[in-house]
Amino acid sequence: MRKGEATRERIVAEAARQAAQRGLADVSLSDVADAAGISKSGLFKHFESKEAMQLAVIARVMDRYFEFVWGDADTRPHGRPRLEAVFERWLDWAETEWPHSGCPVIAMTVELDDQPGPLRDFFRGRLQTWRERFIDEFRPLRAPPLSAPEAQAAYFQMRSFVLGHSEARRMMGDVDARRSAFAAFHALLDRTAAQAA
Amino acid sequence: MRKGEATRERIVAEAARQAAQRGLADVSLSDVADAAGISKSGLFKHFESKEAMQLAVIARVMDRYFEFVWGDADTRPHGRPRLEAVFERWLDWAETEWPHSGCPVIAMTVELDDQPGPLRDFFRGRLQTWRERFIDEFRPLRAPPLSAPEAQAAYFQMRSFVLGHSEARRMMGDVDARRSAFAAFHALLDRTAAQAA
Repeated sequence: MRKGEATRERIVAEAARQAAQRGLADVSLSDVADAAGISKSGLFKHFESKEAMQLAVIARVMDRYFEFVWGDADTRPHGRPRLEAVFERWLDWAETEWPHSGCPVIAMTVELDDQPGPLRDFFRGRLQTWRERFIDEFRPLRAPPLSAPEAQAAYFQMRSFVLGHSEARRMMGDVDARRSAFAAFHALLDRTAAQAA
Repeated sequence: MRKGEATRERIVAEAARQAAQRGLADVSLSDVADAAGISKSGLFKHFESKEAMQLAVIARVMDRYFEFVWGDADTRPHGRPRLEAVFERWLDWAETEWPHSGCPVIAMTVELDDQPGPLRDFFRGRLQTWRERFIDEFRPLRAPPLSAPEAQAAYFQMRSFVLGHSEARRMMGDVDARRSAFAAFHALLDRTAAQAA
């Protein structure tokens, strides 16, 4: 990696860390420059504006999110084995990668859902791609395959359990959160697979 | 209502509106004073510090949350009729009361879960009271009643569907979010009621 790339990477990593704790809007260019050990004018060589840096933060978080949560799912058979692996990693994501701040995807969702503009559009586009991939992954759970609305309804519940787990564990200190999430998810897979077509 | 109380109420309402959009940490005393039509020193007659105002915001939001979501549930029979009424109002809460910002309880959860201190403690205490009341409401869904862990697991799913609905509707623009949430919740009630003790 060239020096310029390494510096850019350091800037975006620090900005992502701040965004996860304070929100994208409150990322401070001065604080990011200080933490990355460069001058503010040095930072502007990499990002011409705060918005350019915020977009790079979203891209970085979403790339890492997909990479982490998807993991080695491609090596597993479609349907249940793949969904189980992904769900487990989805619960691990915030705890492993973002133990201090919690999941930055949830934080950015709450922040951006009432902020129309290029940040929200870019973020939503990434979420949408990811969501469609998951919905598709539910279809082969049963033969004949789930219809698109059935798969979407099942995905809705899977995502809900990830959100419920985050709230229960991080805010309520619920030590059973992980067990509750797994039990709910496995029951969802069982009944979806058993559902009459 | 005396004039002083009306002014205090106006301050807290405006601060709550700002907190729902920007986060509690970014509520600005100057902006709140301007919007409430009083001077900053007038504002300090009601709240000696920003933290005192933030605590008042949490109290106001949580009082209103409970009042709105619980609604007239007390007039309904325990168990399913009451849970159904409350779930519907829970989905309505953000749309009716917070159409611009989304649910402030979700926003405060994401903001405060990594911020130890009096705001988090106070907020968590209110959430905990509310959560226990709901968990109890699941117990009479079946005879013999659900055990405490069974009721907690069912509540986990109910809350998850509320969170999933908020994300799907507000961030993803999913027009089926409400239908997905109701379908998931009714299926939860059916299988919880049918579960062997």
